[in-house]
Amino acid sequence: MNVHGKHYRTIWLDENNPRQLQIIDQRSLPHRFLIETLHSVDDVIGAIADMHVRGAGLIGTAGGFGVYLACLEAQRKSADLFIESVILDASRLAASRPTAVNLQWAVNRVLDSLKTFIGSPDDFIKTALDTAQAIADEDAEFCRRIGQHGKKLIEDISLKKNGQTVNVLTHCNAGWLAFVDFGTATAPIYAAFEQGIDIHVWVDETRPRNQGASLTAWELGQHGVPYTVVTDNAGGHLMQHGMVDMVITGTDRTTYTGDVANKIGTYLKALAAKDNDIPFYVALPSSTFDWTLRDGIREIPIEQRDGDEVRYIQGLHEGEIKTILLTPIDSRAANYAFDVTPARLISALITERGICSASAEGIFSLYPEKRR
Amino acid sequence: MNVHGKHYRTIWLDENNPRQLQIIDQRSLPHRFLIETLHSVDDVIGAIADMHVRGAGLIGTAGGFGVYLACLEAQRKSADLFIESVILDASRLAASRPTAVNLQWAVNRVLDSLKTFIGSPDDFIKTALDTAQAIADEDAEFCRRIGQHGKKLIEDISLKKNGQTVNVLTHCNAGWLAFVDFGTATAPIYAAFEQGIDIHVWVDETRPRNQGASLTAWELGQHGVPYTVVTDNAGGHLMQHGMVDMVITGTDRTTYTGDVANKIGTYLKALAAKDNDIPFYVALPSSTFDWTLRDGIREIPIEQRDGDEVRYIQGLHEGEIKTILLTPIDSRAANYAFDVTPARLISALITERGICSASAEGIFSLYPEKRR
Repeated sequence: MNVHGKHYRTIWLDENNPRQLQIIDQRSLPHRFLIETLHSVDDVIGAIADMHVRGAGLIGTAGGFGVYLACLEAQRKSADLFIESVILDASRLAASRPTAVNLQWAVNRVLDSLKTFIGSPDDFIKTALDTAQAIADEDAEFCRRIGQHGKKLIEDISLKKNGQTVNVLTHCNAGWLAFVDFGTATAPIYAAFEQGIDIHVWVDETRPRNQGASLTAWELGQHGVPYTVVTDNAGGHLMQHGMVDMVITGTDRTTYTGDVANKIGTYLKALAAKDNDIPFYVALPSSTFDWTLRDGIREIPIEQRDGDEVRYIQGLHEGEIKTILLTPIDSRAANYAFDVTPARLISALITERGICSASAEGIFSLYPEKRR
Repeated sequence: MNVHGKHYRTIWLDENNPRQLQIIDQRSLPHRFLIETLHSVDDVIGAIADMHVRGAGLIGTAGGFGVYLACLEAQRKSADLFIESVILDASRLAASRPTAVNLQWAVNRVLDSLKTFIGSPDDFIKTALDTAQAIADEDAEFCRRIGQHGKKLIEDISLKKNGQTVNVLTHCNAGWLAFVDFGTATAPIYAAFEQGIDIHVWVDETRPRNQGASLTAWELGQHGVPYTVVTDNAGGHLMQHGMVDMVITGTDRTTYTGDVANKIGTYLKALAAKDNDIPFYVALPSSTFDWTLRDGIREIPIEQRDGDEVRYIQGLHEGEIKTILLTPIDSRAANYAFDVTPARLISALITERGICSASAEGIFSLYPEKRR
């Protein structure tokens, strides 16, 4: 999407030197827009581990391109140990964010493309690059399709409201910054905006890491989509008073029955949407389905992160990014990263193949090959 | 309640000079515990307007004591214009927080006590002080009674759990810092704690002004009650997983039908409590009932505050209290201060007269004199 009026993806080959990558260093958003060049596998590992890049789609793609850089490095070191060197680096890449399922998947996909291949290191390198590029393009294309399917839902509301502003509420950042382009929850918003539909987004700030206030607000603002940041507490009041027409969120993991694990607080918004008869949609690429899980609340383990993410917060003070303490210095704080929204609260899922109900029946109707 | 092991109220006459007041300057909590001396009516007006003191009960009591200081000042100025001077200062006091209903009520109560009185300025001054002190004592006594009534609810859960920890979730600060002592939502917690019941409090941080993370956390910690700060997003997850036994909040305004206007986000917690069969209680002195309002969502106007309270946040950085920017610099932010929780989501109200259902029938059974 656009930044300062120019189109960007979140990761790309350096135009001037295709032996290195460029990314947006997301740690300093929304206060600074920094492009970082990654020269080596170690640079990629660092960027993933230290969250210069984040979000399932983007982490996976970075891992894929990382294997390409591993091939370049292996060629420089020794032609004899080429494959051994690549495999070693690939396992280091895959371990840089242990819980990121997409990362292991992408690294393995590039490795697999090399396994069945016989040729010179140059051929290997080209194959690795082509596969990594395919992963990036597929990620963007899946998000684009989610946008096209979801746009129809926004269009319908716009028609019912005779062209009056459609107000969409979203939680966390399931935006293009979490993928290669378009995003998931934001893709229908961008698609509707491009089509000239009058749209406005309520952005939940999304404590404790404030991905809404920092990332979603920034990307919508850069692309020109009208938005307003609200606290996570505000959504219920907005819904009670007719100020929200629909909710769209992303998901980190989805059972085949339609339960959704997403950023902590999503469940509370789904309850409020249900209580006020407002449609609640979840947008996702099918890679987030976990085909083995039936009951999200009982079966999806919820990551507990450091309480300091609740006790401290980061922001801009006199031009510098500073971290301040919010609680008593000796305060305990708990930090559950996700919650599970049961399928009964979800109006529909928006996938790259189309829209379906949040139920085994609905999901298998779009993904019949997954039916056991 | 206790601070550094010593009992405090939030406002008191200076022991060494009963012609001045002392308060806890709440602006620097939880990072610094500062006692401030108020020498004049202007000091009291400043302390109310700039939120050194906040919370319905405390603001009212400060206004009452303010009229006492007005009498002292009037005596120093001129015996002839004594009453005129007191009335002028009283109207300035009442206007220092225009929306605080309790403030006008307390100022008028002290003034009224003077109206029917004939005597010397010294007698007037004594009457004003006695009335202000009565307001303070009544505020503390009403909160103490709320604590005694509410304690039984906690006791029942403790018995059902065979003495295992009772987990209470609360939102915002309806603690002793908002009143003269005990608080409302916290009063049953302190009473249960004093009785030796094993209790733990989940403290919602309560964005945007973080009264939970700063004030409720601080006061519970100082009194020795175990607590854990969580983001406002976390409550639903905690309730889904059996980690909350009951919710208690305060209220700013309550219809005679039992709808409750309280800090923004309260409604979301009430929805989650309902969805998980967890009792949701609201503790209040009867002064927060608005006997004219029937439908809280339609009839209670919700204050919109400056969006900068969402965009910026205050905390401690290297020993100094600093304010940092959280959003893009040009971000719009909306800041609705309260929401309305409909009576259907409230298990019961805890008042100074006892516990009743959140309904006209229940409320009038405790306050029959209000039935029209």
